Amino acid sequence: MSSPLMLYYCPGHMSFAPHVILNEIGLPFERRCLSIKSGDTAQAEFRAVNPKGKVPVLKTAEGILTESSAILMYLALRYPGEHLLPDAAVGQAQVVEWLNWLSSMLPASIALRLHPYRFTDEQSAWAGIQARGQAECESFYQMVEQKLQHKTWAVSERFTVVDPMLMIFYRWGDLLGLDMSAFPCWQRHTENMRKRPAVLKTLATEEITI
Amino acid sequence: MSSPLMLYYCPGHMSFAPHVILNEIGLPFERRCLSIKSGDTAQAEFRAVNPKGKVPVLKTAEGILTESSAILMYLALRYPGEHLLPDAAVGQAQVVEWLNWLSSMLPASIALRLHPYRFTDEQSAWAGIQARGQAECESFYQMVEQKLQHKTWAVSERFTVVDPMLMIFYRWGDLLGLDMSAFPCWQRHTENMRKRPAVLKTLATEEITI
Repeated sequence: MSSPLMLYYCPGHMSFAPHVILNEIGLPFERRCLSIKSGDTAQAEFRAVNPKGKVPVLKTAEGILTESSAILMYLALRYPGEHLLPDAAVGQAQVVEWLNWLSSMLPASIALRLHPYRFTDEQSAWAGIQARGQAECESFYQMVEQKLQHKTWAVSERFTVVDPMLMIFYRWGDLLGLDMSAFPCWQRHTENMRKRPAVLKTLATEEITI
Repeated sequence: MSSPLMLYYCPGHMSFAPHVILNEIGLPFERRCLSIKSGDTAQAEFRAVNPKGKVPVLKTAEGILTESSAILMYLALRYPGEHLLPDAAVGQAQVVEWLNWLSSMLPASIALRLHPYRFTDEQSAWAGIQARGQAECESFYQMVEQKLQHKTWAVSERFTVVDPMLMIFYRWGDLLGLDMSAFPCWQRHTENMRKRPAVLKTLATEEITI
């Protein structure tokens, strides 16, 4: 029997977070692996699914969802028995606060650093853009570290849908050439993540290490 | 008696959306008006409230919230009697999908167009960055127009917290020099917004017209 849930993902990217959460929930789901680098997300076939040309995408029995934050909130709200959100409105809003910040400001700075050609056609300007991106990334990574002080999980006493998102940005710190040992709280958070079977399963499927 | 709710806002900015929603709910709340242009959000006093230095901020009895999306979701979840969200998980996730997209990709493109100096120190590169920003904005505005076809409100049959966010981007279309009459569905949406007493009250308080 085919599952109504299908995740479109690219290994090691933002889609890692909903991939972990689907494994946490433990229901059967289908997967479609795409390579951003090879141009899979720019193909007409995928654009018909998501005109924005971005992973993750989650197909559900109730329609197609895009944006990591929306997919994570959908899974948490649709399967309340998994307790992937705090109970109170303010805690749920804090989850949205984290997700929105992580999925907007941080990727914007990372893009400056890694993809300066997205910001102008003039190749001579790329080095200057990258320098700005590196400085911004360092400042954002420091801010995450501060927010994780004295905490096991990002938002509350328990694991929420924010935590796998943090893990993928930890990986990107390495790609950015940041010394991640300078972020001990975040490092401990990543170690706690690695103790979860759903995380190990997702790392194995995506064939990445974090 | 002082209200536990206080909104920090800058007239005509993203904070317009939670400002409208507070007026929709109709509970007493306090307001603190800041000017981004005059540097109010860069002051130490405000950074102590929000280290990210951004409006909106909502002070609540349960703590401080930042990020428009989080504040909007908080108000909708905290005051469920106002029906500011769809009832089903998938509808609520569609609200997050809109909010996340509007508060990440769209402002990023607008910033390229209006604030190229944020992306590099090299002044010679600014014109090229602005050209890229203008092209991206036009494509995003077209995408919003398409998503509003055959709809009164953005997400469901009824008004949700997404709608006032769309109204502020409509205003920014004018600032970007876009011909907003090329977006008839969005124009009709804005006209529907102007029929709401809470919207008129917010426009009057912020001393702006949309």
